[in-house]
Amino acid sequence: MKPKLLYTIVIFTVLFSTYAHFFTSSSGLQFFSTSLAIIFLAGLLGKATETVAHFAGERLGGFLNATFGNAAELIIAIFLVREGLFDMVKASITGSIIGNLLLVLGLSIFAGGLKFKQQKFNPLLAGHNASLMLLGVIALFIPAAFARDLSKNHMDTFSLVVAGALIVAYFLWLIFSMITHKTELSDDPLGNHEQEEEPLWGKGTAILILVVATVFVAIQSEWLVHSIQEVALALGWSELFVGAFVVAIVGNAAEHSAAVFMALKNKIGGAMEIAVGSSLQIALLVGPLLVFISLFFGQPMDILFTMEELVAIGVAVFIAISISRDGMTNWFEGILLFVVYLLIGTAFYFV
Amino acid sequence: MKPKLLYTIVIFTVLFSTYAHFFTSSSGLQFFSTSLAIIFLAGLLGKATETVAHFAGERLGGFLNATFGNAAELIIAIFLVREGLFDMVKASITGSIIGNLLLVLGLSIFAGGLKFKQQKFNPLLAGHNASLMLLGVIALFIPAAFARDLSKNHMDTFSLVVAGALIVAYFLWLIFSMITHKTELSDDPLGNHEQEEEPLWGKGTAILILVVATVFVAIQSEWLVHSIQEVALALGWSELFVGAFVVAIVGNAAEHSAAVFMALKNKIGGAMEIAVGSSLQIALLVGPLLVFISLFFGQPMDILFTMEELVAIGVAVFIAISISRDGMTNWFEGILLFVVYLLIGTAFYFV
Amino acid sequence: MKPKLLYTIVIFTVLFSTYAHFFTSSSGLQFFSTSLAIIFLAGLLGKATETVAHFAGERLGGFLNATFGNAAELIIAIFLVREGLFDMVKASITGSIIGNLLLVLGLSIFAGGLKFKQQKFNPLLAGHNASLMLLGVIALFIPAAFARDLSKNHMDTFSLVVAGALIVAYFLWLIFSMITHKTELSDDPLGNHEQEEEPLWGKGTAILILVVATVFVAIQSEWLVHSIQEVALALGWSELFVGAFVVAIVGNAAEHSAAVFMALKNKIGGAMEIAVGSSLQIALLVGPLLVFISLFFGQPMDILFTMEELVAIGVAVFIAISISRDGMTNWFEGILLFVVYLLIGTAFYFV
Repeated sequence: MKPKLLYTIVIFTVLFSTYAHFFTSSSGLQFFSTSLAIIFLAGLLGKATETVAHFAGERLGGFLNATFGNAAELIIAIFLVREGLFDMVKASITGSIIGNLLLVLGLSIFAGGLKFKQQKFNPLLAGHNASLMLLGVIALFIPAAFARDLSKNHMDTFSLVVAGALIVAYFLWLIFSMITHKTELSDDPLGNHEQEEEPLWGKGTAILILVVATVFVAIQSEWLVHSIQEVALALGWSELFVGAFVVAIVGNAAEHSAAVFMALKNKIGGAMEIAVGSSLQIALLVGPLLVFISLFFGQPMDILFTMEELVAIGVAVFIAISISRDGMTNWFEGILLFVVYLLIGTAFYFV
Repeated sequence: MKPKLLYTIVIFTVLFSTYAHFFTSSSGLQFFSTSLAIIFLAGLLGKATETVAHFAGERLGGFLNATFGNAAELIIAIFLVREGLFDMVKASITGSIIGNLLLVLGLSIFAGGLKFKQQKFNPLLAGHNASLMLLGVIALFIPAAFARDLSKNHMDTFSLVVAGALIVAYFLWLIFSMITHKTELSDDPLGNHEQEEEPLWGKGTAILILVVATVFVAIQSEWLVHSIQEVALALGWSELFVGAFVVAIVGNAAEHSAAVFMALKNKIGGAMEIAVGSSLQIALLVGPLLVFISLFFGQPMDILFTMEELVAIGVAVFIAISISRDGMTNWFEGILLFVVYLLIGTAFYFV
Repeated sequence: MKPKLLYTIVIFTVLFSTYAHFFTSSSGLQFFSTSLAIIFLAGLLGKATETVAHFAGERLGGFLNATFGNAAELIIAIFLVREGLFDMVKASITGSIIGNLLLVLGLSIFAGGLKFKQQKFNPLLAGHNASLMLLGVIALFIPAAFARDLSKNHMDTFSLVVAGALIVAYFLWLIFSMITHKTELSDDPLGNHEQEEEPLWGKGTAILILVVATVFVAIQSEWLVHSIQEVALALGWSELFVGAFVVAIVGNAAEHSAAVFMALKNKIGGAMEIAVGSSLQIALLVGPLLVFISLFFGQPMDILFTMEELVAIGVAVFIAISISRDGMTNWFEGILLFVVYLLIGTAFYFV
């Protein structure tokens, strides 16, 4: 698609959804128009991420994309924490982690695998991603395993310890992966960039588009969440299913399109960085931050997830580790992730 | 052993067990004679599989062996489903999975490891086998984890979704491993077959022997199941132990001998294909098919396994993944599988 | 530090702690003086291990160090078994396993990683260590999973079967790793030893120092356990926390200093052997031996661990496997182990 045409469509669909949101009361129309706007905004985001990745490398580009994508989710979650809707916060954290690890990663690997027989990325990075995902699972699992032994007060303190430890670990990981061991984790240790095409925009323009498009995606996402809840009510869907699946799929649209774009350009390392990096950021940074933020609103949120949520996160992490560990992907591994997503989704739907 | 002598012994033992089954009432004699017949039939099967593997490659040969072996188990299970004996069906599925992954694979690796210091097979195949085994565990674990949240009706529907997803995944795996990525998963990418000896039979004869011997093993297995239940009763063994261990050991005799034969010829990839491939086929195809087949008999069977069965399958898969992941095996790894089999077997015995 | 100075300090601190133990009643002074003595004894042990490793190779040196370290723990545990304090025995086994896998290994990897960008060891050894750790977890997990189905008598018998199987597996592992596959598991298959410095002592002297220092560490450890219990009582710490953390940290001081020393000399394989090898010895040999030893005192100890202990051992094994599997370590992987140790420690503290 030519840039000019894309700009025009993005502007038109954003205006259309704005009109539907403020001047109509049909949740069906609102749902349709905001979905449309998000899809094209996500397309714009994908292109901007590609350009940033051209200048900054796949991994930093992927990190920026994941961060911008999660900023939106963090803002929405803060509003939910303020309202005391802790169960919905945890359901959306769960949904975001498994959505990124299974759906976003699964579709990227599948789409990339249809075009390329085998796609490779740095196995050292795969190993570290696996260990960090495992840390996230362990950190959520331990509080649940000790829940019956701890008083409410101790659990709140313990939640702060867990949250604090995860945030420290995440920042040390950034230092490790971006500074001390940047080269070792790089996808392209030799610096071969010759075959790449000319980027669409300059560095500054691309970052600006990234920021602006992310802001719009955040706004539209919130609108969509509102309209979709009414749609869901009309269709008889459970709150857990809406929180963990519908909201998460829409909320991750940006990561989604950017990751698939990268995979189709044979940059599966960048797609990994977006999907897995986004999951890790949710588990090790966004979730723990919300525990601390809840303190400011006077109602401490603990880090206790339900057994069903832990099972969902646990199996998602194990299958994602299993298929990514060797640093190679193919279409069938995308299918495997997708099947697990389908099974968890169906289970949540029936609950 | 010369072919002629083997034929003679097979025919004699089959006739002997037929006589014992129809014309005597001693369950001890029936048990002894059918066991003998199965052992020599399994030897014949092993030789036929080797020959087929010579023409079709180790992996297709292993796949055919696993399929013929499981066809017998599927037929027996269908009779059990018709009778509504769902617990025994699930016990025998459990026993078949752990029997293949721990006992058949363990003995193959141990026997091969005594002869060869290190045996190698394709690590890419090992990785995919690991992911598929994990999918099987996840697919059985999720329904159990959500059991308390779902009504009987929802669980029946959910079981069909799980079963359907597994069957689709299994057929996509066949397309992936036999068609799109056949070369990448091959044990012998360079096609070196020079050092191989002349096969015993032609292609057609070998397949015919494979089919005929499998049919006879199936019949003998059913007879053995009957006589062994009386023997077990006399010895005071529990039904779970008989279902998951005694029946599974006998029912997998064909896979067993073929896999050990292959390992002793330094074709550990073929032995893996038989043992792991047979487990995967049970978990991803035979079990799910039985869920659908149960619909035709008017009593839907759900996919809920007991906690004890899930633990047994889970630990079997985890230790099998752990020792096979690097694409190398040695005698000690066979011991590890065997120790886990012993522990699970003892636990089931005491239940 | 020069050897003469070290000898002097060791002798002085040992005498000081002996005085405090027998001639004062201040548990604070006893705690301080024995801690001091243990630290310097551990330093001596570390130097002796290095020297032994120079002659015997990193792996045998590490094995000797782990064995001498665990001999002390075995002796203390036998006294506890005689008193029927089974819960404290199991807590200290738990603490010793996770202390070695997370704290000792974590600090070694972190310290080594600050000095060297990447440290490598034999990935085949890493894979086998992983499988053995998994066997330990499985062997403790199965009895717990079947506990509700088994009578007290059956559980005692089953515990003996599990313990016997683990001891056999451990001795087969020694045969495998020290005899049949010694070369394959070696860190230095080419035998490059040129860059090594001259050892401090001769072979015989080093072994003598190893034995004598270990005996003193054992005595001092027991004194420390006594004084620390009073200190803990004064500080209000729970028995589980003292058993699994305080006692384990002190009891593993020898392994600790030796492992860190080795890592700082870029012999991460030796550090692994000490930390992981010590854990394996506890899980596969020391623990099972105690089950048999309990028979002689007339009160059979079963092998049932609490859910909290199993969770602690399980997550420790999984994260240790995850970071070590590729045969490479760096400072961040040390952090990961340490964070998990902190989380488990905090949970045990609050119980």
